[in-house]
Amino acid sequence: MMDFLAQCRAIAGDAYVVDAPADMAAFLTEQRGRFTGKALAVLRPGTVEQVAALVRVCAEHRIGIVPQGGNTGLVLGSIPDASGRQVLLSLARLNRIRKVDAVNRTMTVDAGCILEHIQQAAAAEGCLFPLSLAAEGSCTIGGNLATNAGGTAVLRYGNTRELCLGLEVVTPQGEIWSGLRGLRKDNTGYDLRDLFIGAEGTLGIITGAVLKLYPQPKASITALAALPSPADALRLLVLMQDHCGASLTGFELMSRYCLDLVAQQFPALPRPFAEAHPQYVLLELSSSESEQHAVGLLEHAIGAALDGGVIHDAVVASSVAQSAGLWQLREHIPLAQAKAGKNIKHDISLPVSLIADFIAATGPLLDAAFPGCQLVCFGHLGDGNLHYNVAPPPGISNDDFLANQDKVNRVVYDSVMAFGGSISAEHGIGALKREELAHYKSAVELNMMRAIKAALDPLGIMNPGKVL
Amino acid sequence: MMDFLAQCRAIAGDAYVVDAPADMAAFLTEQRGRFTGKALAVLRPGTVEQVAALVRVCAEHRIGIVPQGGNTGLVLGSIPDASGRQVLLSLARLNRIRKVDAVNRTMTVDAGCILEHIQQAAAAEGCLFPLSLAAEGSCTIGGNLATNAGGTAVLRYGNTRELCLGLEVVTPQGEIWSGLRGLRKDNTGYDLRDLFIGAEGTLGIITGAVLKLYPQPKASITALAALPSPADALRLLVLMQDHCGASLTGFELMSRYCLDLVAQQFPALPRPFAEAHPQYVLLELSSSESEQHAVGLLEHAIGAALDGGVIHDAVVASSVAQSAGLWQLREHIPLAQAKAGKNIKHDISLPVSLIADFIAATGPLLDAAFPGCQLVCFGHLGDGNLHYNVAPPPGISNDDFLANQDKVNRVVYDSVMAFGGSISAEHGIGALKREELAHYKSAVELNMMRAIKAALDPLGIMNPGKVL
Repeated sequence: MMDFLAQCRAIAGDAYVVDAPADMAAFLTEQRGRFTGKALAVLRPGTVEQVAALVRVCAEHRIGIVPQGGNTGLVLGSIPDASGRQVLLSLARLNRIRKVDAVNRTMTVDAGCILEHIQQAAAAEGCLFPLSLAAEGSCTIGGNLATNAGGTAVLRYGNTRELCLGLEVVTPQGEIWSGLRGLRKDNTGYDLRDLFIGAEGTLGIITGAVLKLYPQPKASITALAALPSPADALRLLVLMQDHCGASLTGFELMSRYCLDLVAQQFPALPRPFAEAHPQYVLLELSSSESEQHAVGLLEHAIGAALDGGVIHDAVVASSVAQSAGLWQLREHIPLAQAKAGKNIKHDISLPVSLIADFIAATGPLLDAAFPGCQLVCFGHLGDGNLHYNVAPPPGISNDDFLANQDKVNRVVYDSVMAFGGSISAEHGIGALKREELAHYKSAVELNMMRAIKAALDPLGIMNPGKVL
Repeated sequence: MMDFLAQCRAIAGDAYVVDAPADMAAFLTEQRGRFTGKALAVLRPGTVEQVAALVRVCAEHRIGIVPQGGNTGLVLGSIPDASGRQVLLSLARLNRIRKVDAVNRTMTVDAGCILEHIQQAAAAEGCLFPLSLAAEGSCTIGGNLATNAGGTAVLRYGNTRELCLGLEVVTPQGEIWSGLRGLRKDNTGYDLRDLFIGAEGTLGIITGAVLKLYPQPKASITALAALPSPADALRLLVLMQDHCGASLTGFELMSRYCLDLVAQQFPALPRPFAEAHPQYVLLELSSSESEQHAVGLLEHAIGAALDGGVIHDAVVASSVAQSAGLWQLREHIPLAQAKAGKNIKHDISLPVSLIADFIAATGPLLDAAFPGCQLVCFGHLGDGNLHYNVAPPPGISNDDFLANQDKVNRVVYDSVMAFGGSISAEHGIGALKREELAHYKSAVELNMMRAIKAALDPLGIMNPGKVL
C-alpha cells in the first residue's frame, strides 16, 4: 500500500497536497483567531473526480476529512481538531460557474465559487441571487450550503436551503451523487438535498449546486424608523407585511445601545435622528415595478405607522447613497463591537411573536447574574433572529468578562429554550456548540441524527467532532 | 402476550379498532377505484400518545403500518397491500387546529386537519395559508406533508415543504419527536423535518405540524392569454415575472386540445375567445395593495406581451365571478378527461426552460409508437410541472389503450429523464411508481435512501412496499 500522502499526490498533483506548516497555516486558523487546528495535510483538489478519489483514499486509511470553503465560518466547523490526524480538504479550486439558465432562473455552480461572484454572474443575466451576508466577498457557496447560511434577505427569499434546487455531493464512500436537478417540483423519494444542506460536511462533501435565481427588482428603498420598544417593532413588522407583502425585503432591529456604540467607534457615519430613541428598525422595500412604486408604498406604510403611534419618527433614504448610509449603520454594529472589545455572542432565533417577551425576560436574568452587563441586541427581526451579545459591565475588562462565557451562555440559552427558540439561528453548530446541542436537543432527535450519521458515514470520517 | 388487536383496543378503545370488512372498505379503496387493499384492522387513534402506543404494539408484533389522511392520494401510497397482514392507521381523528399565531404567521395543527379548514382558520385571522389543490375539501395536511403536495400556488409560495416550519412525528419505535418549532431560522443539526416531509410515511408518522402563514393579498385578478406555442408561453412567463415579481401567483398552461375537451364535456362553461388558439395560459396576479394596483400591473404586463408579439390575445377578468369562470376552465380539465374515458396520466416536471423542447420532442415519439394518440397536456408551467396525459387514438377504446400503459410510460419517462426532469412532480411514488423509481434513480441515490430507511426503521414496519 502506498503511503497516504503519496496516494493523495498521485490524485491531486504534488502542488495541491500541502503539508508545509507555513503553507497550511491560513487554512487551519479560524478567522476570529480563536483556535488553530493541526492537519496531516491540506488537500486542494481541482475536480469533483479528484475529491471523490481523495475521499476513497481517506476512507481506506480511516483518516478524518474536514471540508473547507472560504474559512469564514463562526463555529469552528471547517477547522481540523488539534490531533493532527485529520486532513483539511479545500474546495476553493472548484470555482467554476457551470451554467446560467435565465429562463429556468437557475445557476449551476461549483461549491468553491465565492458568493459575490455568484451574485455578479446572476446580475449579468438580469437576475438576482438573493443570498447576501457580511462575508460574501470571501465565503463560498459550498460553505453557505453546508451551514444553511442566513443573511439579510431571508425575510423575503429564505435561507440558503430555500435557494437551492439541486446538489452534487461526494459521499463518505467516495462516490459522486449527481443530484444537480433544476426542478421546482420533484417528489421522487427522500429529500437528500436538504439533509446535506446544513449538515456542515458531516455526511458528505457538497461539490456543486443548482441555485434559484429571481427577477432583479427594479428598485430598492431603505428607511430607518425610531420607536419605543421591541413590542412596537413587532407591531411595525405586521403592519409593513400587511401593507407591502413580498415587497418588504429587510427588517432589522437595532437597540439604542447598538447605534450609540457605532457612533462612538465610527463618528464619521451619519446620525439620522437628532434625538436618541430606545429602538430602531431598518426597513428595506423592493419593487418589481419602479422606484416611484417603492417610494409610494413605503411612504404610505410609514404614514400608517406614524398615524397609529407605532413609530416615533422615520427617515426615508432619498438616494442610493443615503440607502447605503443607513445599511452602513447596521453593518457597522459588529465592527464597532470588535473595536470596543470582545463580548459574548449569541446567534439565536425565536418565534417572531415572542421576541419582545424574550428581550424583556432575559435582560433582567442576565443583570441579576452579572450586574451592569450591557446588551448589544440587534438582528433580523423579521426572521426572529437576534444577535444577542453580552458586553461587560463598565469597569470590567473584556477578557475578565469572557471567563463567564459558559455561565452567560447558560442563562441566555435556557431562556431561548423556554421561549421555544434555537441556540443557533444561522451560524450552525460546528465544534463550538456541539456540547450545547447535546445538552439542549431531545434524546429522540439526537438518536435519529446519530442513526443517519452512522448509516451514511459508517467509518465516521466526514468532519469528525462537528455537530454530533 | 395479549392478542394484537386486543392490545390495540386497550389503547384506542373498541370503537376505534375497526375490523369489520364493511366498515374498513372506505379506507382500503383508492379513490380512483384502481385498487383495493386488505388490512388486519383500521386503527383510528384520537391522540398522538395513542398513535405512539399503537406503533409500539405494531413494532412488537412486526406488523406493517400504513398511515392514511384523507385517502385522496394518487399513487397508492396510503392503501395497504393485498396481504391482509398490514394495519391501516387513520389520522383523521387528530383534527384540531392547535394554535394560530398571527404575529409569528404560523399555525400549529394536527395532521388530520382537512386542508380547507386550515385555509379557513388562517383567513379568520386575516392570514393566508397558500396551499391549494383540487382535493382540498377532503385531503389532510398530514397527507399533504407526507407527499410534499404541490398545487396551484407553488409558483409564489412553494410546495408543502416550503410551507412547514416544524413537525411532530411518531417514530417507527413509537417515540414522539416534538419538532414543532415555529422558527424561520434554526441551524441546529440535521434537517429531519424535510426528511419526513415527502417520505410518504415510510420513516415515521407525521402527527402535527407548524405551518407558515402569509399576509392575505388585498386582491387577486385572473386573465387568460391565447398564444401560438409552448415556447411563447415561456417567453410570457419570463416577461410576467420581470414585470410583476412575486405578484405573479399563477401561471397555468393549457393546450387547445384541453379546452376543446372541456367545451365538449361541459358546454355550459364560458368560452373566452371566439377563435381557437394553439395554447392558452391562465394567469393570476395578487396584490398586497389593492385591486386597482393588481389590474394596472396586469394590464401593463399584458400590453407589453401583446406589443412584443408574445401573445395573440388576452381576456382579463373584470369580476370575481369572471375570475372564477376562468379558473373553472382549468379545473375542469381533469373532470373532462374523466368523462371522456381513462387515459394514461403522467405528473412530470422539467427545467422550465426545456418545457417547450420537451413537448416538441416527446409528441412525435409517442405518435411514432402509438399513431394518432392524443395529448392532454396542461399544468403548472411556472413550476415546470406538466400533467402530460395520453389519450387513445380516435377509434380505439380507452380500455384497450390502457393495456399500453407500461410502454407509454417508458416513452414519456425516458424523454423526461433525457431532459433532466422528474417522473413524479407532485404526486409522489407510493406503490404505483416504486418500480419506476428503482429503474430511473441512480444506485448512489437509492443506496443512500435505503441506508436511511434501514437506520430509522430497522424493522421495516413503516408503510412497507411504498417508495423503496
